[in-house]
Amino acid sequence: MRQVYLDYAATTPVKEEVLAEMLPFFSLQYGNPSSLHKFGYTAREAVDLARERVAALIGAKASEIYFTSGGTESDNWAVEGVAGAQPAGRAHVITSKIEHHALLHSCAALEEKGHSVSYLEVDPTGFVQPHALKQAINERTCLVSIMFANNEVGSIQPIAELAKIANSAGIIFHTDAVQAAGNLPINVQQLGIDMLSLSAHKIYGPKGIGALYIKEGTAISNFIHGGSQEHKRRAGTENVPGIVGFGKAAELAARNLNDHIKKTTTLRDYFIDRLLADIPDVQINGSREQRLPGNVNATFNYIEGEALLLDLDINGIAASTGSACSSGSFAPSHVLTAMGLPIEQVYSSLRFSLGDFTTKEDIDHTVSVLNATVKRLRAFSPFTQE
Amino acid sequence: MRQVYLDYAATTPVKEEVLAEMLPFFSLQYGNPSSLHKFGYTAREAVDLARERVAALIGAKASEIYFTSGGTESDNWAVEGVAGAQPAGRAHVITSKIEHHALLHSCAALEEKGHSVSYLEVDPTGFVQPHALKQAINERTCLVSIMFANNEVGSIQPIAELAKIANSAGIIFHTDAVQAAGNLPINVQQLGIDMLSLSAHKIYGPKGIGALYIKEGTAISNFIHGGSQEHKRRAGTENVPGIVGFGKAAELAARNLNDHIKKTTTLRDYFIDRLLADIPDVQINGSREQRLPGNVNATFNYIEGEALLLDLDINGIAASTGSACSSGSFAPSHVLTAMGLPIEQVYSSLRFSLGDFTTKEDIDHTVSVLNATVKRLRAFSPFTQE
Repeated sequence: MRQVYLDYAATTPVKEEVLAEMLPFFSLQYGNPSSLHKFGYTAREAVDLARERVAALIGAKASEIYFTSGGTESDNWAVEGVAGAQPAGRAHVITSKIEHHALLHSCAALEEKGHSVSYLEVDPTGFVQPHALKQAINERTCLVSIMFANNEVGSIQPIAELAKIANSAGIIFHTDAVQAAGNLPINVQQLGIDMLSLSAHKIYGPKGIGALYIKEGTAISNFIHGGSQEHKRRAGTENVPGIVGFGKAAELAARNLNDHIKKTTTLRDYFIDRLLADIPDVQINGSREQRLPGNVNATFNYIEGEALLLDLDINGIAASTGSACSSGSFAPSHVLTAMGLPIEQVYSSLRFSLGDFTTKEDIDHTVSVLNATVKRLRAFSPFTQE
Repeated sequence: MRQVYLDYAATTPVKEEVLAEMLPFFSLQYGNPSSLHKFGYTAREAVDLARERVAALIGAKASEIYFTSGGTESDNWAVEGVAGAQPAGRAHVITSKIEHHALLHSCAALEEKGHSVSYLEVDPTGFVQPHALKQAINERTCLVSIMFANNEVGSIQPIAELAKIANSAGIIFHTDAVQAAGNLPINVQQLGIDMLSLSAHKIYGPKGIGALYIKEGTAISNFIHGGSQEHKRRAGTENVPGIVGFGKAAELAARNLNDHIKKTTTLRDYFIDRLLADIPDVQINGSREQRLPGNVNATFNYIEGEALLLDLDINGIAASTGSACSSGSFAPSHVLTAMGLPIEQVYSSLRFSLGDFTTKEDIDHTVSVLNATVKRLRAFSPFTQE
């Protein structure tokens, strides 16, 4: 049976060139980068090169990149680290209702400790409104954190504008760029970003490694305490093979960015056009233009998304009801809910995410399977209006 | 030139069998374990198997194992998680002066938040005294954390006795077993341990993955917030290849434990005997018997350890001045200092740690290089007493 993977936003395969660079660091160049001997020095050099490559992907200095265990840790560190480094009075954080749970649940943990958090609304296509950010800022605000692009509906936020509002109020601006990196051009200096979260496994690198960019001079306390690694800011023996893989993945992503965007956007638009043309009662959630190259989020009215997902899986097609991180929970998508979708449409929505190995044949096959499956499920649906 | 790696306590090579099990999970079985499709299910099953294998290494249930990014995160979580889950009055933690920095610096972070921490002294061979623990306990104590075996001098602590004291006072007992696992038999149930930290890269698994054992029913708050991974207790996409490698390494460690202990202990004792016999003015730090199988810590009087280390490296021999995690800092070892060594002896000490690939020839070669190097360095030393 044909296998079609349309869940690149959940995770990506490690590219061959990436794995090839990682391999020696498991069993041959296995030194601890902190060790004062040849095994250690070799590992240290590899980590340094990777740091430069990751920095280059987002226009940062290598000294501003701190490796973490992934995007979730980066988000946690950004939120709790900034809040923890503030004077007592500055205990207000602004974020949005459509952030990843890594951000939302970090904010919830802050609230439990007595901080206050404002969650900005989004418009029906999933965009944060700059004027809403302006209104939410007060003299106690210490951090604004708005994701670069949404993982469910792909909406690319007006980051430059949002960062400028925070900057001119003297407030640290963080963005979760886990979905955006490798899919959009990012330059932290030009955009005015103070902190940015990255994850390797979303850009064809390995799982278990990420980074937090921290602009020089940003006040942030440590999150994981211990040894002197990462310029004394993130303790723990460096995940050398993971870091090496992340570096290579970042280098490839930077080099291929234009081709990747062009090819994936073309496939995405073809997919959306075919969905709308071939299957009745389908709507696309989010914006047609300001959306991640590989993101398609569609509501198949009168059908339970979960049932459709399982049927697709039986047919060898991998998609998602939303964020993989909460897909065990069967809770309605907080993103679609925030966009104002009625609950029955939220439950009728699926995310398809395309990537570097997606082909037109994959899309054609998926549309044809979807067409048959949707028809079949609707025949059983008590909600079908015919 | 012959390369001799005697820094297994800093990190170990990933064993061939371990890497072989990991490999498919990078580019073939690359699913996100939270995804509701075949790619996801395959990853989920692999994670479940690994969890069982890690649990088996320490006599725990699989449901009590939570994967983390490594030993440092596990220690941080244990300390901050327990402290964070206590009622306001219970804000006292007991640990020892010879813990790893992951533990000590987590405790320092707690102190900054207003908790109090007692740091138990150790005797001249590096052992915590159970009666000292008894005395340090008060009605506000919420956590006792004493490492299973020390990373610098290898002292194996009286864990059963210490745990019993904590248990009978109704206090949670945590142990950092990063150095002990795979080197000593561990059964958390028999020993009365409530929480235990593990790291894969010390037992021939990959870097960037560890675990925290949390006994069912232990009150602990989350440390990293976000998705529902790890039974909703540790968010972030699972490091699937890392977890798979950790599982295989744990399985091998459990299977080879007796042979490993016998072989490594024999080599260690041979090394110590030769050091004492062949090189004048050498002393062994720590206990001869109650010490990790692979640990040798020796003071080469009248010599700077750092200089000796660099000379050894030039000769292809990898050793350490103490914990790799702080070896960039040139601070005197807090462990040897706590054991009462005079500062000049602290600076004259090196750690050699032996492992599964160490041979008698490695030891013979090392002793012969040491002999020549120590003579040469002492000839230049202003402290040499001849």
